[in-house]
Amino acid sequence: MGDVSLDDQDVPGPGAPAPTGAVAPAQRGGTRLDPWFGAYAQRTHGMRASEIRALFAVANRPEVVSLAGGMPYLEGLPLEVIADAIQRLVTTRGTTVLQYGSGQGDEGLREQIVEVMRLESIDAHPDDVVVTTGSQQALDLVTRIFIDPGDVIVAEAPSYVGALGVFRAYQADVVHVPIDEHGLVPEALDEALVRLAQQGRRVKLLYTVPNFHNPAGVSISLERRPQILEIARRHGVLVLEDNPYGLLGFDGEPLPAMRSMDDDGVLYLGSFSKTFAPGYRVGWVVAPHAVREKLVLASESAILCPSNASQLAISTYLTTCDWQGQIKDFRELYRERRDAMVGALAKYLPQASWTVPAGGFYTWVKLPEGLDAQSMLPRAVTNRVAYVPGTAFYADGAGADHMRLSFCFPTPERIREGVRRLATVVNGEADLLNIFGTTKFEHPTDDVDSPGPDLA
Amino acid sequence: MGDVSLDDQDVPGPGAPAPTGAVAPAQRGGTRLDPWFGAYAQRTHGMRASEIRALFAVANRPEVVSLAGGMPYLEGLPLEVIADAIQRLVTTRGTTVLQYGSGQGDEGLREQIVEVMRLESIDAHPDDVVVTTGSQQALDLVTRIFIDPGDVIVAEAPSYVGALGVFRAYQADVVHVPIDEHGLVPEALDEALVRLAQQGRRVKLLYTVPNFHNPAGVSISLERRPQILEIARRHGVLVLEDNPYGLLGFDGEPLPAMRSMDDDGVLYLGSFSKTFAPGYRVGWVVAPHAVREKLVLASESAILCPSNASQLAISTYLTTCDWQGQIKDFRELYRERRDAMVGALAKYLPQASWTVPAGGFYTWVKLPEGLDAQSMLPRAVTNRVAYVPGTAFYADGAGADHMRLSFCFPTPERIREGVRRLATVVNGEADLLNIFGTTKFEHPTDDVDSPGPDLA
Repeated sequence: MGDVSLDDQDVPGPGAPAPTGAVAPAQRGGTRLDPWFGAYAQRTHGMRASEIRALFAVANRPEVVSLAGGMPYLEGLPLEVIADAIQRLVTTRGTTVLQYGSGQGDEGLREQIVEVMRLESIDAHPDDVVVTTGSQQALDLVTRIFIDPGDVIVAEAPSYVGALGVFRAYQADVVHVPIDEHGLVPEALDEALVRLAQQGRRVKLLYTVPNFHNPAGVSISLERRPQILEIARRHGVLVLEDNPYGLLGFDGEPLPAMRSMDDDGVLYLGSFSKTFAPGYRVGWVVAPHAVREKLVLASESAILCPSNASQLAISTYLTTCDWQGQIKDFRELYRERRDAMVGALAKYLPQASWTVPAGGFYTWVKLPEGLDAQSMLPRAVTNRVAYVPGTAFYADGAGADHMRLSFCFPTPERIREGVRRLATVVNGEADLLNIFGTTKFEHPTDDVDSPGPDLA
Repeated sequence: MGDVSLDDQDVPGPGAPAPTGAVAPAQRGGTRLDPWFGAYAQRTHGMRASEIRALFAVANRPEVVSLAGGMPYLEGLPLEVIADAIQRLVTTRGTTVLQYGSGQGDEGLREQIVEVMRLESIDAHPDDVVVTTGSQQALDLVTRIFIDPGDVIVAEAPSYVGALGVFRAYQADVVHVPIDEHGLVPEALDEALVRLAQQGRRVKLLYTVPNFHNPAGVSISLERRPQILEIARRHGVLVLEDNPYGLLGFDGEPLPAMRSMDDDGVLYLGSFSKTFAPGYRVGWVVAPHAVREKLVLASESAILCPSNASQLAISTYLTTCDWQGQIKDFRELYRERRDAMVGALAKYLPQASWTVPAGGFYTWVKLPEGLDAQSMLPRAVTNRVAYVPGTAFYADGAGADHMRLSFCFPTPERIREGVRRLATVVNGEADLLNIFGTTKFEHPTDDVDSPGPDLA
């Protein structure tokens, strides 16, 4: 039977008993499988396999069209030019490339990052920048220095699954605020913050992906940006602006970043993972001076220093290659795939609705009434198509009526084929719903292609 | 006046008031410099600049002989061979090198890591290995999944400064246990664990650097290893074996790792930073199955995945180059430097005492009675020599009568010159002590070389 468990870690809830005193052998037996079960920290009991993680394995199978992952398409990169540049780098500066570096990150790269950010109207100083191991580490460090268990983080509904995982790891409570086609709704934000203040809750951060939102595909309009900043400032809430996709708009110029409108109230996260390549794991955070000092200390505790080899490879790429021309190529490539995606949705899934993103990697699809993206997923994978169910993007269990479809990695042909397969699954689910009044069965009939033993 | 602040972060103690409720603008004014002072997490108030961090800046100045840092000496590496191999790697496997990878780490590299560990008699499976961003990240992840605030970690006295920083960041209480020339003293460990159990303390980990200890330079004898494991097992304490230097012994074969004697009770940390190069930031942890699953989840939350570019560069190095021959070269290089160090100590500082390490990077020097390595450091830097005061290696303020001297990076000539300068400082301190009964003055006379404006 084709079944893909998206939550395959058998992790007890936070209510699991924790013995006090030293963890004597007799107390180790919380589960048969794990002699150290009783020794974990409280936060560990909240760690669960992310849906995206389990899906990476599926996405790698060639017969499955993955509309699930956020992997950029790298075939178009000038690999030989990059390889030659790195060879020269290691030959000429090898003892620096291979050595420990500064905890804050390479100064030359930080200067280049400042130039990259000018494209989104950010006026920063290299001293304000902390280089991180992907912007995921920046999320981890920001959460680490600000969040005590029970603190509130306000985030869009839906919000990035990787950020929600970090927030959960630090035992934050996430409160979602609605979005519409112009992004986060200022009035809803203000209402939520007023309500939380009345409840005596301690709100630390507003987490937002303002451009080509992951997963929703929308952007915060230019008009709303200062409104949101004003509301956050009034409530004493720091804005965490996560912007991996800002330069990947399909039309016109990038919108000014929220950081460009407020130096003191915004922590800005950037990344080379989508505009160049994720394999070096280089991202960054821009922070007000005092916060930046704390972030450097936290990063040194976490990893001592970011990789010189990675940082100098990125720096060399920015110097050697036409990186802005490459981003232009990426924008055209992804626009073509976006068009393939929304064209296929209109053709095969007219009974659903979806956002039409003006950039980035994702569209956010609302299923026909009564269908559940999470329970449908095993059948989808059996039909050789994968996506991320909407529930991954909520901290509160909502989102089952949505799915995230990515158009970044597969070719337009594969995207169309994937949506066609998905339509077969959705239509089959709708039939079940019509006949039985539910799509959920203990042992659903396996009436499609055999998924093979390693999907069983 | 030459002064090097080793603790230049003006961080309030954990007792600093934390406002409740949302952090309204009026409450932001904890310090003038930091509008977000009131918003930090409790753990952040314990973050301090490590002594090693502040010293990195000093160590880079060419006129200072740094006996402080733990940077390996990389001049001997075959940089052109490495550069050519990486060029081929990026040309032929670029879209993998530059892409996201698995959270646990590249499978091929994990197989090679298993082979590396066989040199220390470890029989592990690639599934047991989690690749990390240097072994510092492994320390962070282990502490993250096991330590609640107030939990106890038992560690050698002294212990690695970078580990103590992680433990402090997770609000662990470190209890030190004495060592002697054969490493951690089993009887003292047992006594400490009995006492802590009687006090109702929750002891989670025994942290140890068994080989060529940082900073103490000693190794745990073969005879003591099973004794320590038995004591830890009896008390239900997981052993965290941190082993970056195990292959860098100057005489004979490596001792079997503690992990080779106990699969379930030991978490083993390894690193390529000292046996190859730290610039890629590749380390690893070997853990029992259930713990390994938690570590992968924690690492995905922290960084999504380790760098493919770094991992595949290391993997290529192991395949392309004679890495065991390179380690042999490093051993000879560092033995020569160790000899220079202990020779110079005998010549210039006979009134001190020191360990004679049989491998690794460090010797641990006890100053003559009454001298204080921490208060002496600014005068040492003014005399163009740097070291790490012993206090960095204790969680409880002890260690002022010791200093760590590293012999890994400077040439033998520079080591001898550094120790000669150090002797001048020590003798000057001893004179002050004889004449005034103290070496501590509010405004000590600056009667040596001017340190230049950026050391002022």
